[in-house]
Amino acid sequence: MKEIEIFSPGTIANISCGFDVLGCCLDSVGDHMSLRKTKEKGIRISRITGVDLPLDPEKNVAGAAIKALLNALNQPVGFGFEVEMTKNIKPGSGIGSSAASAAGAVFGVNELLGRPFSAEELIPFAAEGERLACGSPIADNVGPALLGGFTLVQANTPLHVLKLPVIAGLYATIIHPQIEIKTADSRAILPTEVPLKDAIQQWANVGTLVHALHENDTELFALSLHDHIVEPHRSKLIPKFDSIKEAALKNGALGCGISGSGPSIYAFSKDLYTAEKVEVEFSNIYSETTIPFHTYVSGINEKGIKIIRTEE
Amino acid sequence: MKEIEIFSPGTIANISCGFDVLGCCLDSVGDHMSLRKTKEKGIRISRITGVDLPLDPEKNVAGAAIKALLNALNQPVGFGFEVEMTKNIKPGSGIGSSAASAAGAVFGVNELLGRPFSAEELIPFAAEGERLACGSPIADNVGPALLGGFTLVQANTPLHVLKLPVIAGLYATIIHPQIEIKTADSRAILPTEVPLKDAIQQWANVGTLVHALHENDTELFALSLHDHIVEPHRSKLIPKFDSIKEAALKNGALGCGISGSGPSIYAFSKDLYTAEKVEVEFSNIYSETTIPFHTYVSGINEKGIKIIRTEE
Repeated sequence: MKEIEIFSPGTIANISCGFDVLGCCLDSVGDHMSLRKTKEKGIRISRITGVDLPLDPEKNVAGAAIKALLNALNQPVGFGFEVEMTKNIKPGSGIGSSAASAAGAVFGVNELLGRPFSAEELIPFAAEGERLACGSPIADNVGPALLGGFTLVQANTPLHVLKLPVIAGLYATIIHPQIEIKTADSRAILPTEVPLKDAIQQWANVGTLVHALHENDTELFALSLHDHIVEPHRSKLIPKFDSIKEAALKNGALGCGISGSGPSIYAFSKDLYTAEKVEVEFSNIYSETTIPFHTYVSGINEKGIKIIRTEE
Repeated sequence: MKEIEIFSPGTIANISCGFDVLGCCLDSVGDHMSLRKTKEKGIRISRITGVDLPLDPEKNVAGAAIKALLNALNQPVGFGFEVEMTKNIKPGSGIGSSAASAAGAVFGVNELLGRPFSAEELIPFAAEGERLACGSPIADNVGPALLGGFTLVQANTPLHVLKLPVIAGLYATIIHPQIEIKTADSRAILPTEVPLKDAIQQWANVGTLVHALHENDTELFALSLHDHIVEPHRSKLIPKFDSIKEAALKNGALGCGISGSGPSIYAFSKDLYTAEKVEVEFSNIYSETTIPFHTYVSGINEKGIKIIRTEE
């Protein structure tokens, strides 16, 4: 294979009760990437459309992720890689922008190399991209981007991500208010200690959510979609969060919470009709503010990154 | 039905990562109970063998649980109930002694009444027995006693217990050191606040454990059997805990932890051979102390309470 064009999906991390561990993959929100072999060795990012990000592979998560993959190969590669990206997911949106770049980059390079690694094995390389973006090799966005569906980070050392089943017919509605929340602020607002009784309710809900996915039980899934630990703090950083959540639940959503570390807010619905009704409500609420915003409705992507075109 | 004789099983609550929420039901450890209709109305506990517990139904968990069930019936009952118990599970052992009495009592009465309630519906009545024993209507022992297998307490208000799948061929080894740990002490030793990073690892493990049960994945189950929150505190109250745990893992057990609030310690093994080897090691370690102890090896009971005999 000489060239590959892919769709690299957006992802929701920190799903309600599953702070730092639960994520899921979106179907209709994501970046386009082209990767091709070059005679000249090394990594070259030749074009990024849609956002202002560094082309220097040392400073770009795609470059860092590819470098981690190449370092893990047993033998040197006799050619180089050129990467082009059309970024539809804005950095800092909370729906896995850096993860899409990192996961897409290692997926594409792996295909060009004849697939020496499995999807699971690509996760630590993509997580090295995340390390460049946020300081830690986190996997709650790159996991679902590479595996698809819902994923659970069982452990970070060594990195171990589990693929969970998906409830059929589930849709996500997302609103991205275009405000900047500094990563430092969204971290600083979290307590280092949490009440034991809240933590117990949280892990009861994580267990319930995993069971609900296996049982394809929408009602049980809805019961589990509560965050007693992080949302009470971080929601203060997102204007209109309470109104958005109230509107989601009032209009039939199964649950609503902060996507990643925000500012995006997601709601899950049991069908497209409800998800679109929720989207209208989200738009109405933010139209009353001066904050620019985007909304999305997406099914859950069970496959992860998708190949659009290859050239042999 | 005039009379019913049942086996009411012991249970392991607080399974490793699942403090307050995860429990499982034992197969070869439990009480025998007989319940029969009497002309005289009311509840009478006529005999308790094996342990010294009050016969007064107002002061016995079996009486409290039956009373809760009768209060929930729409119509008065034209007869009374006599209860006899052979308690093989010692109170204060940490393997669900009060739960076996409470669950067995409501199960038996429900059968004598022609089964007006489902097993799930019996849980809140049995939990009222637990309220008499420990001050709270907890369900992490009565849940598995009534439903069998592994259970997850999704919520306490309203009480909602989920039945989870069982990994085939799993065995539990239990050692009950006959020391008294006062409930007040085992509660007082717990912090009211816990580090967020430990809580995150705990809920990652609860999610992993539930996934492992669904996937029938013994290795994954073993990975999840860690308790970063409660065990470091409560294990201090149990002599030789560290040696016991080390011996369990060294001899092939999948995991080892405190059963309920102790002093019993359980280990899970993937087969009977390993579980019995672990039992020998447990016995060896406690034989070097002056503390009397019992050991048990048991399969996981998928059914819960079992009917031994009925008289129509």
